[in-house]
Amino acid sequence: MTTDTRGLAGVIAGQTALCTVGQQGVGLTYRGYAIADLCAHSSFEEVAWLLMYGTLPTAAELSAYRARLQSLRSLPQELKDVLERLPATAHPMDVLRTGCSMLGTLEPEEDNVRSQHDVADRLIAAFPAMLMYWHHFHTSGQRISVESDAASTAAHFLSLLHGTPPTAEHERALDVSLMLYAEHEFNASTFAGRITSSTLSDFYSAITSAIGTLRGPLHGGANEAAMDLIDRFADPDAAEQGVLRMLAAKSKIMGFGHRVYRINDPRSDIIQQWAHRLSAGTDGRLYAVSERIEAVMRREKRLFPNLDFYAASLYHFLGIPTAMFTPIFVISRTSGWAAHIIEQRADNRLIRPGSEYIGPEPRDYTPVELR
Amino acid sequence: MTTDTRGLAGVIAGQTALCTVGQQGVGLTYRGYAIADLCAHSSFEEVAWLLMYGTLPTAAELSAYRARLQSLRSLPQELKDVLERLPATAHPMDVLRTGCSMLGTLEPEEDNVRSQHDVADRLIAAFPAMLMYWHHFHTSGQRISVESDAASTAAHFLSLLHGTPPTAEHERALDVSLMLYAEHEFNASTFAGRITSSTLSDFYSAITSAIGTLRGPLHGGANEAAMDLIDRFADPDAAEQGVLRMLAAKSKIMGFGHRVYRINDPRSDIIQQWAHRLSAGTDGRLYAVSERIEAVMRREKRLFPNLDFYAASLYHFLGIPTAMFTPIFVISRTSGWAAHIIEQRADNRLIRPGSEYIGPEPRDYTPVELR
Repeated sequence: MTTDTRGLAGVIAGQTALCTVGQQGVGLTYRGYAIADLCAHSSFEEVAWLLMYGTLPTAAELSAYRARLQSLRSLPQELKDVLERLPATAHPMDVLRTGCSMLGTLEPEEDNVRSQHDVADRLIAAFPAMLMYWHHFHTSGQRISVESDAASTAAHFLSLLHGTPPTAEHERALDVSLMLYAEHEFNASTFAGRITSSTLSDFYSAITSAIGTLRGPLHGGANEAAMDLIDRFADPDAAEQGVLRMLAAKSKIMGFGHRVYRINDPRSDIIQQWAHRLSAGTDGRLYAVSERIEAVMRREKRLFPNLDFYAASLYHFLGIPTAMFTPIFVISRTSGWAAHIIEQRADNRLIRPGSEYIGPEPRDYTPVELR
Repeated sequence: MTTDTRGLAGVIAGQTALCTVGQQGVGLTYRGYAIADLCAHSSFEEVAWLLMYGTLPTAAELSAYRARLQSLRSLPQELKDVLERLPATAHPMDVLRTGCSMLGTLEPEEDNVRSQHDVADRLIAAFPAMLMYWHHFHTSGQRISVESDAASTAAHFLSLLHGTPPTAEHERALDVSLMLYAEHEFNASTFAGRITSSTLSDFYSAITSAIGTLRGPLHGGANEAAMDLIDRFADPDAAEQGVLRMLAAKSKIMGFGHRVYRINDPRSDIIQQWAHRLSAGTDGRLYAVSERIEAVMRREKRLFPNLDFYAASLYHFLGIPTAMFTPIFVISRTSGWAAHIIEQRADNRLIRPGSEYIGPEPRDYTPVELR
């Protein structure tokens, strides 16, 4: 190709008012607010509102929004039936992909019945329920109640997972990670959701596309791959040797570098602080291994950790099974996906690129009996 | 924006050896074979093989491939259970989206167990079964057998729909339309599937994204919208007046024009001939109305019909309910989607474009009690 635009690296595919990623001197902002400020003072529910409505909610709006999400946590029986029929061995991302698609048939987006904002709220509230209903049914045979009086999505998720409410510190740690994962401009899953929306397809189709896209190890699956890596080593020295061997074998080390960020990922420092804080309640191995891997990658490859790297040990410290790391990303990113779908629809143009043809020249058809 | 690349119109997003769309002097070819030659001499199964393997099959390969597809038509009980729990009012595209996602949990793509080609064949064979099992269960309460000894996908589909084997003419008409719908370069659904694949996500996720994207009225949904339009008019004069009124009101008329084709859609003549042929068995109204709408659109807007326009009346003449038009598109296009997923994986690069930020400047966070 004259210019290699495979992967659309650097190609401007549209406009967004939602988020800056790696802009000179700005780093990551959601609707103009710095990610560090949000993580210090805000909450996931406030961030979801901000992304979808464009402004920070008033105290009354925020409290009504929390109550609304709380009221949307139950699942229809047909959906529970489907979750029971999904295999115990299913990838949890496939559970959410299927659950989202199924819910779209039971509670379709409809004029004057269910708006795009309604669907977005419903999915944010129902994803933890889907995941946990399926999980407990297939691990212990229990049909759990998927409702809780937890005021936050973070506490609700941890309550359903562990059966008891989390500590304030654990709730806040997950809450911060949900803010960090909420939005990230035209990443692959968001862009897939925008393409689906650009044909004027429905909201659930767009989120289903985004989930299936996030699932891949080059995208959301990276935090699971990072956990598998970290957990492999008995101590920092073993990690250093192991990573050096992997680099020599040209294996890809997940959780480092980024298509857009060039110097560092502004989310990494924040998640690392929380991982460090929660490591206090552990034997310290995973955190020490993580730090050493980071040091080796900086020294050998000049690569910085991205959000996924320290998110892995943080989630592990919260007692979350590794296979649920990317599903948590879904719960959070649904807010950003929703905001992008709403934005795409407000000024839509069908997304349909061209390609460079590299196939055979025109050729004559040969009937099958002459081949 | 400096250059308006919203919609990526004219942007080269990658390379493909599958198909030319609207290349100077070439028109539409699949792997170098002209679409008119294929529609005159080939079959959908042969085209699916050609797209996925790159060459026309030998007689032995073709016959083995037909037998293989025939052997893959049954559905697992868990999937039937899900189809029964989908509402009777569901959009059939949502049925296929959900069925594809569910099958991905039951029969996942796995090294040494189920290859990407296996999944592609399975989906092509199972989609008619999913659609028809759901359809008959919810319209007549029957749990139909989804297998048949039909040698072609076209005859299998019509047999399941009507309960009796089709005439040779009806089978061939549907077969030709399946060839026409099989592949079309970087259209929105294919590109969505390639993005999903580009994160190294699984085959089912990519096809699920493609189905959800095809569903929109600016893409696959166009043939359903065309049918709704055509069926509205009692005769050609009423159609002319109605379309003129719609044009005056700036309503969008579906089934005309194309993002890439500028002069005509080479598929349209072929599908029109078949629609004309099958209209012989009808009172002639729909075909006459279609011709008049085409004439008005050419005269008033200089727009030509695309494949979707005459496909609508053809499918209607085959006794296919309008809501199944786009699902048929899915059955056919799965061959092209599969070929693109295979091609994307063979030389993968994460598809992650950039965006132009048009949101607020950096601003200070205000605590909720001060808002």
